[in-house]
Amino acid sequence: MPLSMHSMSVPVFARMLTNVLAWLDQAEKHAESRKFDPGNYLGLRLAPDMLPFARQVQIASDTTKNCVARLAGLEPPKWPDDEKTLDELRARIRKTIEYAQSVPAAQLDGSEAREITVPAGPGRTFTFTGETFLRGFSLPNFFFHVTMIYALLRHAGVELGKMDYLGAP
Amino acid sequence: MPLSMHSMSVPVFARMLTNVLAWLDQAEKHAESRKFDPGNYLGLRLAPDMLPFARQVQIASDTTKNCVARLAGLEPPKWPDDEKTLDELRARIRKTIEYAQSVPAAQLDGSEAREITVPAGPGRTFTFTGETFLRGFSLPNFFFHVTMIYALLRHAGVELGKMDYLGAP
Repeated sequence: MPLSMHSMSVPVFARMLTNVLAWLDQAEKHAESRKFDPGNYLGLRLAPDMLPFARQVQIASDTTKNCVARLAGLEPPKWPDDEKTLDELRARIRKTIEYAQSVPAAQLDGSEAREITVPAGPGRTFTFTGETFLRGFSLPNFFFHVTMIYALLRHAGVELGKMDYLGAP
Repeated sequence: MPLSMHSMSVPVFARMLTNVLAWLDQAEKHAESRKFDPGNYLGLRLAPDMLPFARQVQIASDTTKNCVARLAGLEPPKWPDDEKTLDELRARIRKTIEYAQSVPAAQLDGSEAREITVPAGPGRTFTFTGETFLRGFSLPNFFFHVTMIYALLRHAGVELGKMDYLGAP
């Protein structure tokens, strides 16, 4: 089967987000063994002018739902970004996977040349084709935030390795 | 044009590696303004059991050349991983982009179902189809190491923002 806009988006997002769920379980075990509140992860930052852990998870979720919705010609669902605990972040990730997998593949496929306009700050937009939106914006952004989640957990001492990052082959 | 194995690999690698070149320039300016040896970046680690900066660059390069070569049915070039300065890392990145762009698109295209076997430590291998190799192994690994390069530089105080990460649209 040739690659398609669906095969190069939804399975990538779903698999990496499933891996993130396992990292959060590992982070919770680490917090229990060291006797600290797992909620402490949510405010961690790699640098004071970088976004905290909870936002990294929310934006990994946003990148997924916005990509899938826009490629399919749908309005992306709006979610309130009010998660305050690891459990709520886990629920957000599960909801994201479910949403991505709920959009029929046929609605994404063939969207290579579809014009996609996304907000880029006050009064500005970026315009892409479906293909450049997936390849040059959505996938790089998604992997950025997923890797930041991993980097913050590793930096915090959580035991994770490259195979946890990649997940089941 | 439908997506192809070439369009979803070489342009992604080439663009992100071009962005990395600009981050290294920014890192060098930061070192000059703070009067430290830019070679100090090469040993930085986010955690003591994570690979240092220089290895992150070398592995981003390896992921690219190995992906392109294997999809094209070629033996990946072997490079010695002996870079000791930012300049040598820049040269490694440029050589990687040139190699990736030197392989004709037609040699990658149609490799979705090609069997790809990669070494996975002593006596072990992973076997993929071209599609799962690209989607579930090469792209996640590539973005992991590129994001780690960015994370290490941000953590070290280099002025970079999300638009530097994404590069020219």
